[in-house]
Amino acid sequence: MSDLRVPRGFVFSAGCAGIKASGKPDLALAEAPRGANAAALFTRNRVVAAPLIVGREHLKKTRGRVRAVIVNSGNANCATGAGGMAATRAVCGQLGKVLQAAPEFIFPSSTGIIGVPLPVEKIRAALPQVVSGLASSGVALQQFEQAIMTTDTRPKIASATFRDGREAVTVTGVAKGAGMIHPNMATMLAYLFTDIDAVSAQLGAALVEACGSSFNCISVDGDTSTNDTLLLLASGASGIKLDSRTRKRFAEALSDVCQSLAEQIVADGEGVKHVIRLSVEGARTDAEAHAIANTIATSMLVKTAWAGADPNWGRILAAVGRSGIAVDPAKVDIFIGPHQVCRQGAKGEFSEDSAHSYMLRPQYDIRVRVGGGRGRVRLLTSDLTSEYVHINADYST
Amino acid sequence: MSDLRVPRGFVFSAGCAGIKASGKPDLALAEAPRGANAAALFTRNRVVAAPLIVGREHLKKTRGRVRAVIVNSGNANCATGAGGMAATRAVCGQLGKVLQAAPEFIFPSSTGIIGVPLPVEKIRAALPQVVSGLASSGVALQQFEQAIMTTDTRPKIASATFRDGREAVTVTGVAKGAGMIHPNMATMLAYLFTDIDAVSAQLGAALVEACGSSFNCISVDGDTSTNDTLLLLASGASGIKLDSRTRKRFAEALSDVCQSLAEQIVADGEGVKHVIRLSVEGARTDAEAHAIANTIATSMLVKTAWAGADPNWGRILAAVGRSGIAVDPAKVDIFIGPHQVCRQGAKGEFSEDSAHSYMLRPQYDIRVRVGGGRGRVRLLTSDLTSEYVHINADYST
Repeated sequence: MSDLRVPRGFVFSAGCAGIKASGKPDLALAEAPRGANAAALFTRNRVVAAPLIVGREHLKKTRGRVRAVIVNSGNANCATGAGGMAATRAVCGQLGKVLQAAPEFIFPSSTGIIGVPLPVEKIRAALPQVVSGLASSGVALQQFEQAIMTTDTRPKIASATFRDGREAVTVTGVAKGAGMIHPNMATMLAYLFTDIDAVSAQLGAALVEACGSSFNCISVDGDTSTNDTLLLLASGASGIKLDSRTRKRFAEALSDVCQSLAEQIVADGEGVKHVIRLSVEGARTDAEAHAIANTIATSMLVKTAWAGADPNWGRILAAVGRSGIAVDPAKVDIFIGPHQVCRQGAKGEFSEDSAHSYMLRPQYDIRVRVGGGRGRVRLLTSDLTSEYVHINADYST
Repeated sequence: MSDLRVPRGFVFSAGCAGIKASGKPDLALAEAPRGANAAALFTRNRVVAAPLIVGREHLKKTRGRVRAVIVNSGNANCATGAGGMAATRAVCGQLGKVLQAAPEFIFPSSTGIIGVPLPVEKIRAALPQVVSGLASSGVALQQFEQAIMTTDTRPKIASATFRDGREAVTVTGVAKGAGMIHPNMATMLAYLFTDIDAVSAQLGAALVEACGSSFNCISVDGDTSTNDTLLLLASGASGIKLDSRTRKRFAEALSDVCQSLAEQIVADGEGVKHVIRLSVEGARTDAEAHAIANTIATSMLVKTAWAGADPNWGRILAAVGRSGIAVDPAKVDIFIGPHQVCRQGAKGEFSEDSAHSYMLRPQYDIRVRVGGGRGRVRLLTSDLTSEYVHINADYST
């Protein structure tokens, strides 16, 4: 992982449209002046915000060609009915006019409160100034990142580069948090920019692979947003082709960036005090390992024990038991860091004090072995603190 | 629902074996001196405590005949390996000796910390005094109830009676909490006593039916204990047979008692400030309605909004969307009491202030309509407060 580099072929900008009551930046723009090939992944929630429907439609129409990405924060434009669809189309249409591009080359995103009409006029009014600020600098990219934030406490950026002869290929991504967001909803948004030369189908395959071990393996509170979006754009400006020669290095760079962003997202989850790298192994299949890990990572009892640095292996064992996967409890071993807290379904030989001390670290490992199978998964997850409850229980209106 | 009545044919007692460090009562005994027919339901968690394994085995051996129920609190005897099984068998054997019954007529239960060996000697030493205290009074039944409590803040008892000619049939139940329990585990235990004359198969059918709309419809934190047990004992001492003539009234009485106990359990859940009667209707099947309701009732985002009396329908809608059930968001209506907060997937016409005021009540209704189907369910659930986190995050050793 190298320092922040801006991939060639992209310019960035941000501005204040007045959607956020705080007056903070809430409109982010990324443009590929010569266009980019794209691939995207969206939330699996059946309640889907208008920009996701429109974005998917646009990618289909242009066969994965994108000229610009426009993101507003402060309003998710979700559960807003036909008016919400019209609002997103209006924003794309207006930006298309300014950039002299057809609306379907604009990829829209929104994040923030749901059920409130998107203030299209405010966005329209702010667009010219945002467009005029477009620049290829790291500063401009950081401004883009800050304008997509909602309750995030820090920006999330990651960058990776590999050389191919004299040229370098850069992958740089920015993201906003997966911890569910005051006052209304959560969203994970991530935008990945690269200057490799690749077609959409290649990018789609690379994105699914990188996502499988990063964004699909994080869990803060188990809720899935209506707006989750992951977009990969390739400008081709490096002149390096994505082919059998470069595929492995590109996959590694993309995976490094996704992994880093995923870790930054969990660490900045609402009220999170501990990030846990949770491994489940010995399941019959990876899917079964995932189901078990997910039950552990979403158990309120387990997560509150983690908040208290309590080496409470019984709660973990009980979560394994109710995961729906056929596991023989007598074959379950649980390790909290170097401490084997559970051996064959019963209490292991360990010092409660040492395990407690270990769990005071901000980030640590828990490993659960459920049998002799080859199925395994690694999840990044977090504790559940009273700060989380405070953030999400405050009455918002 | 009538006042507390003790069904004929049972005697109760309790004592202090010293399992709880607090010195509070921790050993509860119920005896049917002439025996009782029984039916039981157990946790679906695959990690199952020793007393459940032994209890199931005993019921099978005796074809549902039970002489006495022995419950200890303060230790769940779970994840204790072969030693745990031997401990439960020892307790049953010892009590059988005192009562002059074969061990298989003893039904054992345990609740409390897991992974710690059951102190059999302490129980053995306390048994004679507990047996000598057996009485058929309401006071004795209340002592039984208090001895099965762990973090419960109040006892849970319910009673119902119906007349049949000159005779009366009584159903009385006691339970302990489903809110997960400091320091280690949760358990829901419920014991239902009746003096109707019925065979085990009849009791089993009645129990499944009553449970379906009561204990199976409560959710505090989504975790399922390793020790959950629901036992129905019928002494036959009323002389009234369970037959086509009495079946309906008995089912109603049993259902009333189970429903009341379930409500008491949720209201006394850890840190619970609000009990929500959550209805989901219009699903294709009852099972789909249940899956949707369960996703809502276990969503941390939804439950924290309830803690803040926040009429945040967007979180409920998003939970519907990620339930895995095919729902058209444009057909979803959500009502918080009389306030329609969501109409056809978008914001309803309602006053935030009025809805907020309504949600300050300790108990209230939320209704979610997801389509035009006939599938429906009603769940009792609760909010998620920072008290819950405090109770469960305190480091226990």
